[in-house]
Amino acid sequence: MSFPPQLFVPAITPFLSNLSVDNARFVENCKVLLDDGADGLAPFGTTSEANSLSVSERIEALETLIAAGVPANRLIPGTGCSALPDSIALTRHAVSLGCLGVLALPPFFYKGVTDDGVFASYARIIEAVGDMRLKLYLYHIPQFTGVPITLPLIERLLKTYPDTVVGLKDSSGNWDNTYAVIQAFPEFASFSASEALLGKNLAAGGAGCISASANVQAKNIVSLIRAIGTADEERIAARVTAVRKIFEGLPLIPAIKAATAQRHRDDNYCIVRPPLVALSPEFAPQIDQALKLSTSETH
Amino acid sequence: MSFPPQLFVPAITPFLSNLSVDNARFVENCKVLLDDGADGLAPFGTTSEANSLSVSERIEALETLIAAGVPANRLIPGTGCSALPDSIALTRHAVSLGCLGVLALPPFFYKGVTDDGVFASYARIIEAVGDMRLKLYLYHIPQFTGVPITLPLIERLLKTYPDTVVGLKDSSGNWDNTYAVIQAFPEFASFSASEALLGKNLAAGGAGCISASANVQAKNIVSLIRAIGTADEERIAARVTAVRKIFEGLPLIPAIKAATAQRHRDDNYCIVRPPLVALSPEFAPQIDQALKLSTSETH
Repeated sequence: MSFPPQLFVPAITPFLSNLSVDNARFVENCKVLLDDGADGLAPFGTTSEANSLSVSERIEALETLIAAGVPANRLIPGTGCSALPDSIALTRHAVSLGCLGVLALPPFFYKGVTDDGVFASYARIIEAVGDMRLKLYLYHIPQFTGVPITLPLIERLLKTYPDTVVGLKDSSGNWDNTYAVIQAFPEFASFSASEALLGKNLAAGGAGCISASANVQAKNIVSLIRAIGTADEERIAARVTAVRKIFEGLPLIPAIKAATAQRHRDDNYCIVRPPLVALSPEFAPQIDQALKLSTSETH
Repeated sequence: MSFPPQLFVPAITPFLSNLSVDNARFVENCKVLLDDGADGLAPFGTTSEANSLSVSERIEALETLIAAGVPANRLIPGTGCSALPDSIALTRHAVSLGCLGVLALPPFFYKGVTDDGVFASYARIIEAVGDMRLKLYLYHIPQFTGVPITLPLIERLLKTYPDTVVGLKDSSGNWDNTYAVIQAFPEFASFSASEALLGKNLAAGGAGCISASANVQAKNIVSLIRAIGTADEERIAARVTAVRKIFEGLPLIPAIKAATAQRHRDDNYCIVRPPLVALSPEFAPQIDQALKLSTSETH
């Protein structure tokens, strides 16, 4: 299957100085990201500090976002938690609001778990939600979870829930893995986490990317998607890569928030929840440079 | 400081066949463990599948346990979650019930976090709870969390919260680390997670152990604590080690639950939540053997 290439942004979660979720800035920033041209948002992912939020905070923020006019059918919120009842509650809630899909981490506390156990976890979520509207994207980020989404697991889930399990976000950074998934399951929407892999992803038949740096350079990435196969591709790809490289040299999430703060000229966007630590001001020149590369392109 | 040597049991969490928490069996089994002679219980630890439970399930189970007559001052429940508001809610709740202490994991989703970030997380919990009754034990289990509790972090917490941060459970299995902590912070109660390290722990000035296998062999471990330095020590230690070695060859938590089921002659105790998978019946002979070694000793 060939997918229309898409960019979803794993939108950051702003906090107030007392560390409570800042729903007003969350809405403001999400609207800006959609205005940048992103196809949709994947809030409550790794970049969003989702696992630093309580279930009720995630529910309230999602409801606030949709109530503020962001269309639910452009949202793929993260709903996978360590505890099964939490994953079920969040998945059911997202479906009830009409979200386009959910991006579900496997349970991530235990290590060395079996595919049987991870399958049982996803199966329980799907059966408990019991709603054909549910479109579930698997979230492969073994460097944080210690729990890989293996090809045999995908195969088993696709066989059992072909209308529900519809795609994967591969945050492993391992192109060979993404390619193997696309080859094995061509009807399955495989997203890369890195815009650096976007060209390869789309050429192989993947679905696009859900990239942290899209919080800053969504415009660049949308331009790149449009330019693929044209004379402009190389030039725009180089710019996208340059921004990416700046962030690779920094603590990623604090740096993305610092760049968002700089963009909005509002330091509150810098606030992170522990265990993350706000970016040191010494990195301001790199943030300035990333923003310059992110916004000066004529699209 | 020399501590009275203690055994706390990280009590398993039983489930009903629909995977909801089985509070009746939880109470029943916890009372048996105290009858075995354990000094107290450390429910909602790794062995308890705590991170597979929602906050409200943990609150309800703890309240049920105390309402059923288990003294709060013999309980050190686990309260550390991935999300800070969850850790605060559980810690505040445990203190409000009069628990002896809490055993707090660091936030465990992000990897490569700094001591500053982990310190900020514990500091936020302590300040938010704001109750001098809080006695907090740090939980060092880097093979699951990816977030070690380092010596500089302990030092900083002890300096800032000397009356609150009172001890550590070292589940790393690395005796050199436990020894270094005991040497550096003699007033700090350092528990080993393995009864295999109990002799060394107590000889060095540690506080005892909080061991998974104590769910099955609490009597043996209590005997060992009493026998340390006597002619019986070697014989009892050998028996304790033999039980431990059986579990080391099996998936630990499912095996501990299978042994508990066998002990109660009640298969419901075998039920685990995904991503764990119940022990295969093929291991029944090993479980029988472990139970025989756990209970036939005359104490």
